[in-house]
Parts: sequence; structure tokens; C-alpha cells
Amino acid sequence: MALEISKELFSEIDYLIENQLDKSIQELLNDEHHADIAEVLDELNLEQATYIIKLLDSEKTSIILMELDEDVRERVLKNLSAKEIAEEIDELDTDDAADIIAELPEERQKRVISELDDDEHKADIQELLSYDEDSAGGLMAKELVRVNENWTVPRCVKEMRIQAEEVTRVHSIYVVNDSEQLIGRLSLKDLLMAPARGNITKIVRPKVDSVNVHEDVEEVAKIMQKYDLEAIPVVDENKVLLGRITIDDIVDVIKEEAEKDYQMAAGISQDVEADDNVWELTRARLPWLVLGLFGGLGSVFIMKGFGHIMETVPSLFFYTPLIAAMAGNVGVQSSAIIVQGLANDNVKGSLFNRLLKEVGLSLINGLALALLVIIFGYIIGQNHLESLAIAVSMMAVIIVAALVGTFVPIILDKKDIDPAIATGPFITTSNDILGIYLFFVIAGLIIGF
Amino acid sequence: MALEISKELFSEIDYLIENQLDKSIQELLNDEHHADIAEVLDELNLEQATYIIKLLDSEKTSIILMELDEDVRERVLKNLSAKEIAEEIDELDTDDAADIIAELPEERQKRVISELDDDEHKADIQELLSYDEDSAGGLMAKELVRVNENWTVPRCVKEMRIQAEEVTRVHSIYVVNDSEQLIGRLSLKDLLMAPARGNITKIVRPKVDSVNVHEDVEEVAKIMQKYDLEAIPVVDENKVLLGRITIDDIVDVIKEEAEKDYQMAAGISQDVEADDNVWELTRARLPWLVLGLFGGLGSVFIMKGFGHIMETVPSLFFYTPLIAAMAGNVGVQSSAIIVQGLANDNVKGSLFNRLLKEVGLSLINGLALALLVIIFGYIIGQNHLESLAIAVSMMAVIIVAALVGTFVPIILDKKDIDPAIATGPFITTSNDILGIYLFFVIAGLIIGF
Repeated sequence: MALEISKELFSEIDYLIENQLDKSIQELLNDEHHADIAEVLDELNLEQATYIIKLLDSEKTSIILMELDEDVRERVLKNLSAKEIAEEIDELDTDDAADIIAELPEERQKRVISELDDDEHKADIQELLSYDEDSAGGLMAKELVRVNENWTVPRCVKEMRIQAEEVTRVHSIYVVNDSEQLIGRLSLKDLLMAPARGNITKIVRPKVDSVNVHEDVEEVAKIMQKYDLEAIPVVDENKVLLGRITIDDIVDVIKEEAEKDYQMAAGISQDVEADDNVWELTRARLPWLVLGLFGGLGSVFIMKGFGHIMETVPSLFFYTPLIAAMAGNVGVQSSAIIVQGLANDNVKGSLFNRLLKEVGLSLINGLALALLVIIFGYIIGQNHLESLAIAVSMMAVIIVAALVGTFVPIILDKKDIDPAIATGPFITTSNDILGIYLFFVIAGLIIGF
Repeated sequence: MALEISKELFSEIDYLIENQLDKSIQELLNDEHHADIAEVLDELNLEQATYIIKLLDSEKTSIILMELDEDVRERVLKNLSAKEIAEEIDELDTDDAADIIAELPEERQKRVISELDDDEHKADIQELLSYDEDSAGGLMAKELVRVNENWTVPRCVKEMRIQAEEVTRVHSIYVVNDSEQLIGRLSLKDLLMAPARGNITKIVRPKVDSVNVHEDVEEVAKIMQKYDLEAIPVVDENKVLLGRITIDDIVDVIKEEAEKDYQMAAGISQDVEADDNVWELTRARLPWLVLGLFGGLGSVFIMKGFGHIMETVPSLFFYTPLIAAMAGNVGVQSSAIIVQGLANDNVKGSLFNRLLKEVGLSLINGLALALLVIIFGYIIGQNHLESLAIAVSMMAVIIVAALVGTFVPIILDKKDIDPAIATGPFITTSNDILGIYLFFVIAGLIIGF
């Protein structure tokens, strides 16, 4: 199915470009899927990629551009003139066109837009660029099939045929009234199965989900998933039909959101990939490590403060990495479950009940782990009182860590801050410090120092 | 758009069920979307939920069942007879039907299947149950629109109308030859826009992506995303058309996969939610905590082994939580990037280059962090040699932790084990032990003990 990415293919392309055998390059690539060609271009050097983009038909290269790695696309676009970019943009659907233009520097955006041929396309793209990129308006396309409620079935079929030429996939035919307000929808199936004559009002489905143009894309994703929609129309405050969002865009939103949360939990800011360069990776990783370092230096301070008991109960110091690890692990578990629950609207009920549950849960886990610590102490012949002190204070640390892990994301969420930042290094670091402090204090109370 | 979930609604439902005002319940719920009703039922008690399921039309309740929380559905189904379940199943598409039956205990499965009315539906469901649930066959539905390559356009339209009655959404019309082999496709748009007469061969698109029935669902998800497909036909080894997979099922696969990876990275096995009960949560969390505890006990051993230097260089012991934290954080960062890269087929190039890159990256991070440690040591008036020893050994620990975090997932992946299990507690725990050991050994070489 796919173009085989192999050394042979690349040396063939090398050779063809070297000798400017344009016909052969076209023959090699013309029948391939644009996503496959994009994969090949991602691996070529910039000159080669640009050469191929300029060579192939812009109907094809425009969608190839959309599939390229973002940084490859950025570099290729730099190599093209505003006019050449405009030619690509002319071929694209409005949503893709707006996405590409939005990636350009501001000055360049204006020049590319001014080079666009089709005035309607231009106006549509400018409208889309005016919306926030995380809103329904920023995600939608202007291409859709719309019919008027007063039309007859044959007229609808005829108009639909004309409009459908511009729409890659027709999911629904949207029905509007004379004020362009969305009042219902038709499926292609309805139209195919409708009696050949008569007004469409009889077959219009008046129930149609829609989202406001300023709705957050994550909310749109939730609605489309919940109601299993493949497309959703976008309207303004007056119910005027503005565009539509399709499920393939939502798939991208879901994936990006999941990857962002995953990276945040792992202590990686920004959107980086394994193949990004060392500097990009450092910028994404170092800040979190510095946070962790400060946390670690904080625990150095705390332990120094208890340095006077090093001679009497040295074993406490041997257990500090264990205490820090348990506090970190428990905190991450709790926060991950809450962050996921919040994302899925799955955290219901009162805060007090959640607190009770979390305390209960960590008591069970804590008791099991404390028992293991006491058994271990017995095996290595540790002082019984010390073992008990370690086990009990570890339990306390586990309970506190679970509460911190649970409530920090909930509080952030209530304050409209993305709770995902609470996972990972943030929780582990604060729990490390808090845990070690609590550990020494409680152990001190039990042993008596 | 949605049924408002409120205390008033629940007390109304309480009252209506209490007084068996069936008509009013039907009036209240009949026009609501099944996904909204499912949300309400998730919050009711079992008797109430079952009462409503039995009351409403099975055309509606069957799809409500699909939307219920898995554990709610399990309990509701226990309350229904095999015959009642079969009535629900009769209304469902084959893929949903097979999913629900697969959740039942084996004995019950047989009884429900034997109660199914429609023989073709029954055979289809049994076929689907025979496939691995993580394969294309386990995800596909049998419902699709198929036409023969020799048919005329009018006959296709006619057949399509008949077949489309059973298919919720028609994405493509699949064209088969006389041996039922998939040879092309038509879009509804093509058919709507085709000349009214003549054979369909002129408008058939011979290029059609398909997947083998035994293909892994994650692979199917990748293909559908890459080629932006809304549906993909499923074929057997002989290209015989068996079923189709639609994008809404793929959305679920992507979400589940992301949530599973996220939970694994947080040290949570199994698929749990914030609202699961304490025992389910404990079972998912305790094993990882025990793993962490064993790791912690391992570092107790190591530190005990270096106990003799506690009097001469006590500060090393104060830094152990810091060292463990850095080793853990760096390891999680590295493994998260690799796990994501592997999932997106984004980890290319030789292992040696990756090793060089990871060492370079951790050298940069390590140097920056080491500098901070030395400054901190200077501020708190620490012995310079000790500061240097701590900083240098921390750098070594960071490099090793990054390499472990990078290569453990790569090795697991090469051995066909899900690399995601390498993230989280697994990496932190092994890096904790390794890190603390290395720290004392290298610091010992520098300070000389």
C-alpha cells in the first residue's frame, strides 16, 4: 500500500534530481498517496524536498505540504516565494489553508494572502485566521454543502452536486432558512432515498447538533465523541451557519492533547519529539530538572537540620530515598487518576467524600507497605522501635502524598489552570520535600529525639 | 443540547419510578439522545436503571446500553434475562452486538446467541466473536454497502437504498467482483453525480485501502490516521470483503491507548477510573508501590554498605534524595520521549547515533545542574572537594539514567514487549538504586574513601 522507504528509493531520487530527470520523478511519485510522499520528503534534504515540491502539480503538493513534519514544512516554505505559496494555498481547503498561513511570519502572511486568486477563498481564509486557534472557529472549514429549506428535492440534488465538487467529504447537507440560520440537516442517504419530487421540508431532520464558533476545541472533541458525530456544524450567536468541523481534525486534537498530558506528566514542556535536536530537547527538559534539583536541595537542608541524630539513629538516613520514592510514586498515581478523571468529566461527588476515599485507599496501601518494612527490618536485625517508627511515619507520608496528589489538580482545575501541570515533577518534588520532613518529625516523636 | 443532570431531574425520576408513571418517564426521556440518557442511568441505582431499560423501546435502549459505564452495564445485564438481552442485541449493529456479548460470562453468551431471532445477524455476530478483540476483525462491523462491478448505475442506486437501511453511516460503497473480492470503491457523491445510465465500471475508483482481518487495531488506527480515512474495508487473505471499520471506533482505540500509556507511566496497572471503588484502585496501584518499596529497600542496603563514611562525609547522605530524584526524573523524561516516538514510528536512525545524542543531551543538562550544585555548596559553606564530588557524581548518574531511560524501552520494543511498561515506577525504581550506588562509588573515588 505504501511507498517503501528504503536506501534504494533515496539513491534513485538522488540520481533523478541530480540529472534533472523530471519526467521520471513525476512517474515515480505521481500515483503515490500524498501521505507517503510526505514521509519521503521528510527524509530528504531541503533542496531535494523543495525541488520535488516545485516539480509536482500544486494540486498534489498542497496536500503533501499539509502532511510534512512541521519543521520540514517551515523550511520548505521559506524556500518558496509568496506567489508559489499562494498557488499551493489556492488548492487547499480553507481550514488547511488557514493553518499553513498561520505558521508563516506575519509580514509573509499578508503577502501570501494578497497573492491569492480566488476572492471568496481569500475572504474565507481571512475569516478563519481571525478566530482563536483553540476555538471551533480555528478548527473548522468553510467548505460544506448547504441547501435552503424552501428548495425542492431536485433542486437540492442539483445544488448539492455543484457544491459537493468543492467538499472533500459530504457527511451531512445542512439546511438553512433565508437568514442563513441552521435549521436542520439531511444525510446524503436521505436525499438518495427521497421521493423524486416535492419540497425537502418533509425529509429535513430538525435536530442537529452544532457548536458555537468560540467553543473550546476540547469541548467540541468531547461533544463529537459523546454523540459519535463525524461532522458538526459551527454557528455564531445568531445560529448563522459558519462552517463545519470533521472528525479527522478531532482525531488530531485528541492525539495532541494526550501527548501533551503525557509529556507534562514526564516533565517535558513544549511539544518535542524523539528526533528533535539536542537544543530543543534541552529547552523542554532542563527547566523541570532544575525544579527537581531545587526540591532535592530543599531536602538537603531538611536533613542537615536533623544531622544531630545521625549518630544515634543513622538508619533513618538510609531510608530517606525510600521515603522520597514512596511519596513521589503515590502522589503521581493519585494525580494521574484525578487528571484523567477531570479530562473525562469523571470526577463527581463532594470533595469530602473524595478525601475520605483517598485516605481509605492510602491507609490500605500504607498498611501493606508498612508491614513489608517491618518484616524487612526484622530480617536485617534492625532495632524494633526504629522499624516501627519508619513504618508508621512512612504511612503518614503516603497518606499526605495521596492527598496532595489528589487535591492539587482539583484545586488547579477549579482555578481554570490545566491540572495536567500538577502531575510529574511538580508533584514528585513537593512530595519529596514534604515527605522527608514529615518522616523525620514523626519518627522523632516515636523514637523520641 | 443535553439533558441537564440535576438534583431536580433525579428526584423527578425517583418520583416517577416510585409511582410507576411509565408514560411520563417515556415522555421525559424518549426525545433525548441515547448518550444523555446513558449518563443519567449511570447515576441511578441499579433497580431504577433496569426499570428504565425495560420500559423504553429496545431500539433505543440497545444503544443506551452501549454508552453505559462498563460496570453499570455489567450489573444491568445481570438483571436481564437471556431473552431480554437478545432483544437488545437484535437492534444493534454487529460490532456493538459482539462487544456486548463478549462481556457476558461464557455460559450466558451461548444462551443469548441461541435466543437471537435473525439468522444472518446471528452468524455475523458469531463470526465477529471468533476474532481476537485487538484485531481488525474484532473491531469491524459486518454492515456495509457492497455492489457488484457488473451492475449498472440504476441497479447500484436501488441496491444501495436497500442495503443502506441497515447501515448507520454510508462512507463508501464497496465494489466487489463475482468472487466477493474487493476491487474498488464508490463514494455516495460519485453515485449521486454519475450519469443516470451505464455500467458502474466507469466510475469505480480502483484504488482502495484495506486491512487484513488479523491486523492489529493499533496498526489500523495508524493507517486510518495517516491516510485520513473515515472508514476502511477489512478483507481476508484472498481479498474477500469481510467488513469495515469506521473512524469513531478508531477514536476509541486512540483514546484507550493514550489512557493506558498514561496510567502505566503513572504506575497504575489495569484500566481504572477516579470513580472506581477503593479495592479496584488498590489492586491497580499497590503492585507498583511494592515494586517501589523493594527498590527503596535496595537503596537502604547500599547506603548501609557505605555507613562507615557517615562520620567522615555525612553530607553525601543528605544528597541521596536529590540524587534519586534526578535519576528518576531524567529516566522518566528519556523513556517518555522514546515511548512516544516508538508509538508514532518516529524513532529512526542507528542506535549508536541515539546513544551519542542522549549522552550529549544529558551532558548539557548535567553540566547546568552540576554548576547549580556547586554554587549551592559554596553558599552553604560546604567543603569544596565534597561539592565537586557530589556535582561530578550527579552528572554521571544523570548520564546513566538517561541511557537506561532511552534503551530499556527500545530493547523492550525490539523484543515485542509494550515499551510503555518501562516508563514510570519501573524506570524510577531501577534508576534510584543504580543512581545511589554510582553516586557513592564515584564520590568515593574523588574524595578518596
